[in-house]
This record gives sequence, C-alpha cells and structure tokens, in this order.
Amino acid sequence: MTDDPVLDPALTALLPAGFRDILAPNAANEARLIDAMMSTATGHGYLRVKPPLIEFETSLLQGPGAATAERVFRLMDPISQRMMGLRADMTAQAARIATTRLKNAPRPVRLCYAGEVLRTTANQLNPEREVVQVGAELIGSPTAEADAEIILVAIEALRAVGVERISLDLMVPTLVPSVLAKLGLPAKPLSALRQAIDRKDVAAVEEIAGDGAAVLVGLLEAAGPRTEAMQALSRLDLPGDAREALDRLTEVVELVTAVEPDLSITLDPAENRGFEYHTGIAFSLFARGVRAEMGRGGRYRPNHDPEGTATGFTLYLERVLQALPDPKKPQTVFVPHGTPRDQAAALRRDGRITVAGLTPADDAEAEARRMGCTFILRDGQVAALN
Amino acid sequence: MTDDPVLDPALTALLPAGFRDILAPNAANEARLIDAMMSTATGHGYLRVKPPLIEFETSLLQGPGAATAERVFRLMDPISQRMMGLRADMTAQAARIATTRLKNAPRPVRLCYAGEVLRTTANQLNPEREVVQVGAELIGSPTAEADAEIILVAIEALRAVGVERISLDLMVPTLVPSVLAKLGLPAKPLSALRQAIDRKDVAAVEEIAGDGAAVLVGLLEAAGPRTEAMQALSRLDLPGDAREALDRLTEVVELVTAVEPDLSITLDPAENRGFEYHTGIAFSLFARGVRAEMGRGGRYRPNHDPEGTATGFTLYLERVLQALPDPKKPQTVFVPHGTPRDQAAALRRDGRITVAGLTPADDAEAEARRMGCTFILRDGQVAALN
Repeated sequence: MTDDPVLDPALTALLPAGFRDILAPNAANEARLIDAMMSTATGHGYLRVKPPLIEFETSLLQGPGAATAERVFRLMDPISQRMMGLRADMTAQAARIATTRLKNAPRPVRLCYAGEVLRTTANQLNPEREVVQVGAELIGSPTAEADAEIILVAIEALRAVGVERISLDLMVPTLVPSVLAKLGLPAKPLSALRQAIDRKDVAAVEEIAGDGAAVLVGLLEAAGPRTEAMQALSRLDLPGDAREALDRLTEVVELVTAVEPDLSITLDPAENRGFEYHTGIAFSLFARGVRAEMGRGGRYRPNHDPEGTATGFTLYLERVLQALPDPKKPQTVFVPHGTPRDQAAALRRDGRITVAGLTPADDAEAEARRMGCTFILRDGQVAALN
Repeated sequence: MTDDPVLDPALTALLPAGFRDILAPNAANEARLIDAMMSTATGHGYLRVKPPLIEFETSLLQGPGAATAERVFRLMDPISQRMMGLRADMTAQAARIATTRLKNAPRPVRLCYAGEVLRTTANQLNPEREVVQVGAELIGSPTAEADAEIILVAIEALRAVGVERISLDLMVPTLVPSVLAKLGLPAKPLSALRQAIDRKDVAAVEEIAGDGAAVLVGLLEAAGPRTEAMQALSRLDLPGDAREALDRLTEVVELVTAVEPDLSITLDPAENRGFEYHTGIAFSLFARGVRAEMGRGGRYRPNHDPEGTATGFTLYLERVLQALPDPKKPQTVFVPHGTPRDQAAALRRDGRITVAGLTPADDAEAEARRMGCTFILRDGQVAALN
C-alpha cells in the first residue's frame, strides 16, 4: 500500500489536476477525524445536517455563498433546464437550512456538517479541487457568548483529533470600513487608502487618510498579542460603531480566555481580506508548524434572512491533517484457509483485523507475510510473525 | 426539527428534483451506519479508500463503469480542457485503484469505500439523484471462497447496522449466454429468444429455442428456493462452461450456508438484466419488508486489467435505511447561562449532549423547554424536565 501517487506521474495523470485517490490508511483516518470533530459539535447540541452536493446556482451563491461564485462548477439540470452548481462551500447551505427548513425551530439554531466541497480552479496554495469541509453554525444569537461558543467549539474539535499548540487570530472586519465611512473621502483616494491598509503600508495611510490617519495607523500598529493589542486599541479615538465593535472584541476575548487561559491569541483589528461577508468578530485558527490556517469563521448575515445574524466556523480537513502525525498502518492477522470461521470472528469481535487465506497454502506463514500481515492465527492462537 | 421538506412544496422547490437536505437526527444516523458498515469490511482486512467525486470521463466509464454512461453528469475541466464526469458508481473507481495505484500490492487486494454518487436522471423507482454507495471489492482471486467472502461480508455489514431477515438471491449471468452460444441461431431469432428469456416467457422460449428449449426452460423453471433449485439444475443437460458455472454456484452456496445455515437463499439462474458486466456469480440482497434490493454484487473484470478478475458488493444506504426504524432524536441537557463551564464539560465527557443558554433567562426551565431540551443542569445536577 506504499504506492505513492504523487511520485508516479503516469498514475497522477489518471486523474484531473487537484483530484486524488486517498488510500489506506489515510481514508479511514480521515473518516475517524471527521467523526471526532462532528462528535465535538454534536456534544454541544449542534444538529448534524447533510445538504446535497448539487444545488441550483442561484441558491448556492446567496449570502455567504457569494464569495465562491468564481470557483463553482456549473452543470445544466436536464430535468429543470436550470443551472446548478457543485458546492464550493457548505456555510451557505447550512444557513439556508436554518432559515428555510428550520425557520420554525427555536433560536438559536445550532447546525454542524462535514462533506466534500469542489472548486473549478486550483492554485499553489490550494492545489486541491476537492477538499473536506467540517463546520458548525450558530444561527440567531447576536451575543458575544455565541461568538465565543463557536470559537471554543472549533478549538475543542481540533483538540479532539489531536491538534496541539493552537493559536487564535481575531479580526473585526467591520472596523476599518466604519472608520473609513466617517472620513468622507472621494472614491479614488478611498480605494487607494483601502489598498494601503490591506498592504499594511503605514506611510501611505498617513499620506492619504488625513484626519483618519491616527486611528487607522493605530489599528494597523495594534496588531499583535492580545494584551498589548487590547491596550493599544483602548487608547484610540474611535467612532461609536467602531468602539462598539471593539467592546465586543474585548468581551469575546474575555469569554474565550476564561475557558482557554493559555491559548495564544493575537488580534489583527485592521484585517479584512477574505472576510468581506462578515458582519462582526471573525477569526482564524492556526497550529504551530502549519503555515496555513486550520480553519476560520465569524459572524455573518445568513441567506434567506436579511434581518438575521449567525456565526460559524469552517475547519479544513487537509490542513488539520498537516498538523497531525501520519496514521499508522493497522496490524492484521492472517487466517489460513480452512481455519474454523468462528475463530476469526472472535478475533474481529476483539477489534482485530483478519485477512482470510482464500486458497490452501503449503507455507501459511510465508503466505501471511506475502499478504503483509504481522500476525497469524495458528491452532486457535494469534502468533506474531517475526 | 420536525419540518418535513417532503410535505412542503415551497421548500422542496429550493433544491433540484432528486436532491435533498438530510436533517437531524438522520444525518448523524447515516454517518453512524456508514461507519458501522465500513468497520465490518475493514475488520475483514478491506482497506478503506476514497476516490474523488470527479474523474476524467474516459476513466470513469471504463470496465464496470460503462453501465453508468447514460447517467453521468459531465463537466468541462477548465484546466485540462478535457471532459470530466461526476461519479455515478464507485465500483470502477475502486477497481481502477487496485489495478493502477496498487498494481504492485499482493493479490488478492481487498478495498472498501463509502461515498456519494450522482446521476443525471431520476425515476419513480429511484427518485434520488444523490445517494450514498457503500461497497467492497476483492480483486485478484478467482476462487469460490472469494465469491462467498464478498457475500458474507455484505450480509455481516447489513447485520451490523441492524438489518434483519436478510435474503440472498444468487444469479449466474453467464449461464444463458453460454447456452445461447451453443445454439448457433441467427441474430434475429437470437434477439427474440433473449427477450423471451428476460420476460420469463416459457412458451416463446419453447417456440424459438429449438434444441436448446429444454435447457433454457429448465433454467427458467429452476428459479426458486436453493434446495429445489439446485436439484432442478442438476438434472439439466448443460454445455461444459455452463456446467462449470453451475458447479461454482453449488460451491458458493455451500460456503455461504456453512456460515449462514439459516439464510434464505433463492437461485435465479436465467436472470441477466442489470448484471451485463458480470462474468461469474452475481447476487442481490433483500430484507423482509423492503421491496427493492438492499444491495448487489458479483464477479466482474476490473478496468485497466483485462486478464484480471474481481468480485465485490454495493450496498445502497437509502434502501438500508428503509429496513431500519427511524432514528430517535437524542436527549439534550440545557445548561443555563452562567453555569460553570466545567460542569457542562463533565456531562459531555459522560456522553451527554449539552445546549448552552447564551443569555440569562428569568425562567431557565421554560427556556430549556423552548430549546427542546429534556433535561436541565441545576446546581450541578441533571434534572429531568416533566
């Protein structure tokens, strides 16, 4: 089972770029990790749902799904003659379920899900076009407790599969826009200013922002470990709604650290990229040793419910796997041809994996070794093969 | 969570025909059943694999995949500009993995898998266009032991999820073709004869088949419970390769009944429809009370390996669910706002599901009931809500 498709171009060419076969022991390991992460969420009352792989394009791209529009595989439905899409993200699907099928369920609604998502394009950072998304959504509670619960359940799910040394990066994607709105800049300098902020180019911000420079540079320079960042932010002269957003951030940090006092938390108050559809606290989760984020989430407005509010997280299974040791190949017991069936059945009941010999073998031990087994069932006893 | 999408046309219209949201508690139940069926197979040494949802069309439709050609959703790959397809069946994918990526692995190779398959069209018998396929393939062993193992693992997998009163229907799809080949009939009467056999129209078979009538009618009339069927078959004057196929059938019945003496087994020796790509013993599995088959399988020639032989089974999760009672909604414990976090964590470690109150409630019990909880955590104790 050691054939490595990555190393064999002839085999890789069997599949389109970005698609792959997951072999043993990885496929079973992935299933086990998904199950453990889902169990964490269901333990907190999140109801597991399973939306379809295909929906009408219009539905798939609503609300939080809009961000995926450029990456969705489109298909014509031969039945309805309408355009359908293969999901590139499940957040919008869960939000749709909450706001339509479960519109009469008591609020907040807690949902969780795991499944494949697909993308038309691949890039160096994300070479896969089929990945597993694991997520949870808490719909209908505007509270800081809800923000904190989603972050804490995501961290607990990562811990449940063995991810260690997790760090949390907190963002407030609405902060910069609400400061910018107060400046009343014309479109062109406003756009230049936005870009300067995204580049974290302090000099350019000071040059363009005029009266807003002190606050904007303050937001940029506050980025860092939570204690220092919170102090720096408290000194800024912010407009009312930005101040409220920061108060919420403070509250969420307090709720999270009450449960996770040793968690490494950094704040990135001016960060906005990739969180454009978020309407409140957003976050990324990292693990020491893995450069890309394990997962992300935050507060958003669910589709089909313009008055509503939700928060949720997405964990990327492929990234989680990078933070974990490779799974071990399970040990197997060879059961020679002609062994009474109940002996092998008893071993399986004890959690052993048996591999039946389908033909008589002169040398059963040699046959067991050929089949890659590490044990053999002999005279009703399991014996190790040396 | 009682919103029933089937009963609400406005909600059903949200999704294309044949696609649906699986809600709680069904989604978690499905995941549990898949896990149990996969555990049965992995316990017998089947290595779990996970092929991608999308492949090149040419690859997807090879070998046992050819039967799905009419039902495959096609997509243009923007990267390679080649046609891709969404898998409608995973058997060919597993066979491809065995004969390419695992071509150097010791034979026989045992693989198992579970995943979604998609179809362009729906019909009354199969209204779903996205279903879960659970399967296992035993590749590279031509033995009757392999035929029997696949049947027995499929039955054990069904039992593992609670399916009772399973019955097995055995077929030899090569039998009729090998009798027909001996008759030397011209194309037109041969085609008419094939149709008469498929219709089980004894009179028409007698009229068309000439010298072959006795054997063909004998095969048709032998269909039924295994003991009588085997006796009837033993009296037929069959050509050599048909006799060999029947000897194999006898052997497989003996191997299966040695392990499953009480299993209801019927033989349908002239049946061929839907098993056109099979090259040996084939079978269907039924459960009392469910009209459609739970699963099917049999011997075939794997793609990428014209000299090879394999046998395997497919179980249809949607059908398996029809044979089982509806899952119960799990009971949940409401944890009022302000309860120390470690109390709820201790409950979850004991396997309880907790639902946190996110805001202070004047009447915690009323809030617990509103949220659909059946228990409440009060003064560190779990109390039932009446």
